[in-house]
Amino acid sequence: MDHLKAMLKRRKVGHSLEGDFYHSQAILDIELKAIFEKEWVFVGNSSEIPNPGDYITATVGRNSVILLKKKSGEISAFLNSCRHRGSLICLGKKGHSNQLVCPYHQWTYDEDGALVHAGEMPADFDPENHFLKSVSLQNMSGMLYVCISKNPPDFEEFRKQVEPYIAPHQPFRCKVAYEESIVEEANWKLVIENNRECYHCAGSHPELTFSLTAFAMPDDPRADGFFTELMPRMAKKWQELGLPHKPVPGGDKFRCIRLPFINDALSMTIDGSLASRKLLGDLKDANLGSARMFHVPGNWNHFGSDYILHASVTPISADKTLLTTKWLVHEDAVEGWDYDVKHLARVWQATNEQDSTLAANNHLGTRSVGYEPGPYAESEFMLTDFTNWYGGMMEKYIEGEDEK
Amino acid sequence: MDHLKAMLKRRKVGHSLEGDFYHSQAILDIELKAIFEKEWVFVGNSSEIPNPGDYITATVGRNSVILLKKKSGEISAFLNSCRHRGSLICLGKKGHSNQLVCPYHQWTYDEDGALVHAGEMPADFDPENHFLKSVSLQNMSGMLYVCISKNPPDFEEFRKQVEPYIAPHQPFRCKVAYEESIVEEANWKLVIENNRECYHCAGSHPELTFSLTAFAMPDDPRADGFFTELMPRMAKKWQELGLPHKPVPGGDKFRCIRLPFINDALSMTIDGSLASRKLLGDLKDANLGSARMFHVPGNWNHFGSDYILHASVTPISADKTLLTTKWLVHEDAVEGWDYDVKHLARVWQATNEQDSTLAANNHLGTRSVGYEPGPYAESEFMLTDFTNWYGGMMEKYIEGEDEK
Amino acid sequence: MDHLKAMLKRRKVGHSLEGDFYHSQAILDIELKAIFEKEWVFVGNSSEIPNPGDYITATVGRNSVILLKKKSGEISAFLNSCRHRGSLICLGKKGHSNQLVCPYHQWTYDEDGALVHAGEMPADFDPENHFLKSVSLQNMSGMLYVCISKNPPDFEEFRKQVEPYIAPHQPFRCKVAYEESIVEEANWKLVIENNRECYHCAGSHPELTFSLTAFAMPDDPRADGFFTELMPRMAKKWQELGLPHKPVPGGDKFRCIRLPFINDALSMTIDGSLASRKLLGDLKDANLGSARMFHVPGNWNHFGSDYILHASVTPISADKTLLTTKWLVHEDAVEGWDYDVKHLARVWQATNEQDSTLAANNHLGTRSVGYEPGPYAESEFMLTDFTNWYGGMMEKYIEGEDEK
Repeated sequence: MDHLKAMLKRRKVGHSLEGDFYHSQAILDIELKAIFEKEWVFVGNSSEIPNPGDYITATVGRNSVILLKKKSGEISAFLNSCRHRGSLICLGKKGHSNQLVCPYHQWTYDEDGALVHAGEMPADFDPENHFLKSVSLQNMSGMLYVCISKNPPDFEEFRKQVEPYIAPHQPFRCKVAYEESIVEEANWKLVIENNRECYHCAGSHPELTFSLTAFAMPDDPRADGFFTELMPRMAKKWQELGLPHKPVPGGDKFRCIRLPFINDALSMTIDGSLASRKLLGDLKDANLGSARMFHVPGNWNHFGSDYILHASVTPISADKTLLTTKWLVHEDAVEGWDYDVKHLARVWQATNEQDSTLAANNHLGTRSVGYEPGPYAESEFMLTDFTNWYGGMMEKYIEGEDEK
Repeated sequence: MDHLKAMLKRRKVGHSLEGDFYHSQAILDIELKAIFEKEWVFVGNSSEIPNPGDYITATVGRNSVILLKKKSGEISAFLNSCRHRGSLICLGKKGHSNQLVCPYHQWTYDEDGALVHAGEMPADFDPENHFLKSVSLQNMSGMLYVCISKNPPDFEEFRKQVEPYIAPHQPFRCKVAYEESIVEEANWKLVIENNRECYHCAGSHPELTFSLTAFAMPDDPRADGFFTELMPRMAKKWQELGLPHKPVPGGDKFRCIRLPFINDALSMTIDGSLASRKLLGDLKDANLGSARMFHVPGNWNHFGSDYILHASVTPISADKTLLTTKWLVHEDAVEGWDYDVKHLARVWQATNEQDSTLAANNHLGTRSVGYEPGPYAESEFMLTDFTNWYGGMMEKYIEGEDEK
Repeated sequence: MDHLKAMLKRRKVGHSLEGDFYHSQAILDIELKAIFEKEWVFVGNSSEIPNPGDYITATVGRNSVILLKKKSGEISAFLNSCRHRGSLICLGKKGHSNQLVCPYHQWTYDEDGALVHAGEMPADFDPENHFLKSVSLQNMSGMLYVCISKNPPDFEEFRKQVEPYIAPHQPFRCKVAYEESIVEEANWKLVIENNRECYHCAGSHPELTFSLTAFAMPDDPRADGFFTELMPRMAKKWQELGLPHKPVPGGDKFRCIRLPFINDALSMTIDGSLASRKLLGDLKDANLGSARMFHVPGNWNHFGSDYILHASVTPISADKTLLTTKWLVHEDAVEGWDYDVKHLARVWQATNEQDSTLAANNHLGTRSVGYEPGPYAESEFMLTDFTNWYGGMMEKYIEGEDEK
């Protein structure tokens, strides 16, 4: 703990973190509590559980969480741990059940988490003390966020700023067309740092950079003639369509912006052609670029005219990270007619694999005695945000522990 | 250590253990010393080493142990670590050798562990100081128990109580017809807790519950008409045959009882038919139900009229456990004529796989911040015994360490 | 740390080490700093990078190192960690590039490690503060040694003593004909201890002992009539050819000696026949036995008349070790004509596999409570050197830490 405090104290703003932050299992164990169990964490999309009884599970730090659609249309969120002896209740990624029945001893909970059946218990057993533990949930146009903490941080500023950008894409009226999880051989923070800059894009992502501009701001000083012509033209169009586009003031916790695609691309596909002929929500114009969104600790999302991409990062250990990616299309889009899964998924599958290699090599290199925190490039300003936020969360947690 | 003490102090009797007991590698490291190197641990059957020079190896905590049949018919038990540079001496699960020869530098020990050859040693080398280290051994009708500790706990009460139940099955006159090891993704205590109750049987073990009654006591209050008729009828028969059946007073350390099978089953097989036509020992009546036996820390045994099942649990790490299962039939039973291995092994193979899944999901769920020790059902009274015994052993060890 | 100090203090000279030295990950973490980042470590052969721009990478403890041939013919040695965010720069085992370009963000270093390109950096960024970190390098007749420490220990005594033995084999005029890495399930010190004695050879290495004598000294008291006749005859020949052969006074840090082969073998091959018809350097006589060399912490080499064997040991964790072996022949030898890779590699491939099994069983056995440090045989005198050197390095490191 003293070592962690000292490292936080000497942390240089605008620089990558000291090596132990990326390699110490003891620090990861603290991060699970200090970050993943304190923050709002993206867990999925309401359109994944359209009908009462549908549920999905998601991992938040070391916790499995159940998201269950209720008869009323509301969504319950529970910690996936039976109140008897702690077994996981829902085992797979998704399912359907009118009640939550633990597979171990058939303890049964209703859609509100109330224990409605527990066999062979002694006379003094009180079911009311053994309801499922619920967690805080926020639903923003179908984007589901969960907070494990009993005192969740504010969510409303995020909603106020960001919802106008994504609401037109109607995430709640989508379906998951494809989903993929990969294990990266890198610390979760290196996976995020990799994602938070496009400084590396030109050298590594030929598929992605057909459509995506490396510029993360409308007034990027590196912008060429093409972009300086394109940006105001698209901005005008968005304004006419009522689509907000300017960067939101999210500080170091979240980010949202709408930017055009390059190469006349309509979608983040290998050739810029649409991934789905059925546009999202009530959109009529296919040529809209995309809204890009990020929220600490670990999820990024892209909202195009035709598909939405969700990516979530979960630490497995100090040197392994799970990346789960979902591709969503309009709920009425027909596979084989409106969209082809291979075409839809190809760009981000390739990009994820490339990033996985970059992060793994970054991880290995930071073990060296030769590694010391290096300075971020100007286009890596989001990494400064991320490491500042990270340092603050860790310091805050340690202060809280010290006061105990 | 302070954390462990605090957890032991606040442990609630009749409840599962706090999560760290199931997930901390530091606690497992202590358990190896406090439990597996203090208690009598079941290591195999004398019938596995019928002839002089036959040996088997077994794992007791972090120690490999050699059981060697001597010319006199007695059995030696040694720690499997050469006194030269510590290599394993016997490498496989079983073998035959008139002397124990270390494969590294051919140091050679006789059947009593005396060092009879060590090449190239200096003049002042004293072989007598480098004999194999023996460990305490008990042989109960062929059931072999080893204790690593120099001050083994009492064994005689166990022998006095339990031997009359198993002697009629003559374990010493058997042979291993089939043997299987699986690695479970769960803490060893969750594997034991799973085994110590049949509350989960109806929901998970269709093969096992064809023959095995979920009732662990003759006067189980849940017993239906069928069982209340069956039990006294069988008890009368056992009494006539001289087979004891009442639960022994083993406290929280061991357990033995004889119970009938249901569905007119003769054996724990998929359809209740005999697994081996050659009955065990001198038994004449195939319809005897079975004697069930358990001894801390981690082995359970079933003694039927036709086969014996041995199961042993060895921790690999905090989250991995080795389960070794052996199926024994009469030494004169002929494979293909008296018994078929698939038929013999099917029920417990299936049951072990099912239990492995249950324990793994239990393990995962107890990582959650939502997990807190839950109350045992009435039919889980053996888990109360187990956790009480466990808590006591750990407290005793810590006291001993504190006094040092 | 107190436990480590106590173990070092009670270490018995001439005995193997206490079990925790072989099993504690905390001790390995210290060894990486105390030993692998303090000593000269063998990393390869200059003949592996014959042309300007050729590079190889090697692992020194937890560090990847780049060895790059410069235009001048000199060799640069760098820590393989980009000064931007720490990524590995060179990814494979070997390659060719006129500049070192980090694959992450294309930071580019020249052959002296100077940063010559870094895009998008802010105005106050000073490239001169972000040159690659170089490490000390020694080239002894083509044998490359690297030291991570800023205060490397003396190398000149080693060079003075050993170079005359190996120079006639001209390692700098070779090529790697075959290369192989295996992961051994044993602590790195057990891998070294295994290598430092041939007490186990007769029982385990039928292929190796066709040519290699188990005697490590010319005056081995165990020598039989054959060897006592052979040794002076070969010594006379070596003297005539100007090939030194007596054991060098390397203390506990290094060793070099020339010894004859037995069975009229010309080379360490399955039948003693030459592995390569093209002799090394300017050697004319094929019947020369071999020079054997060792340098702490973990590499051994054999120099025959026809091929050179390099073996290097790198710890992966307390219980896993990487062994990299390279077989070198004359640079002009033609595969298929002068040498056949299978014939060349067979003896040491088999020997490495056999040693890997021995070390793994040694590792497992030293976990036992029955294990205590055992006495070395007379022919294991090099293990006394190794453990003495090891103990000294660890004590020195701890003293240095205590003074901080």
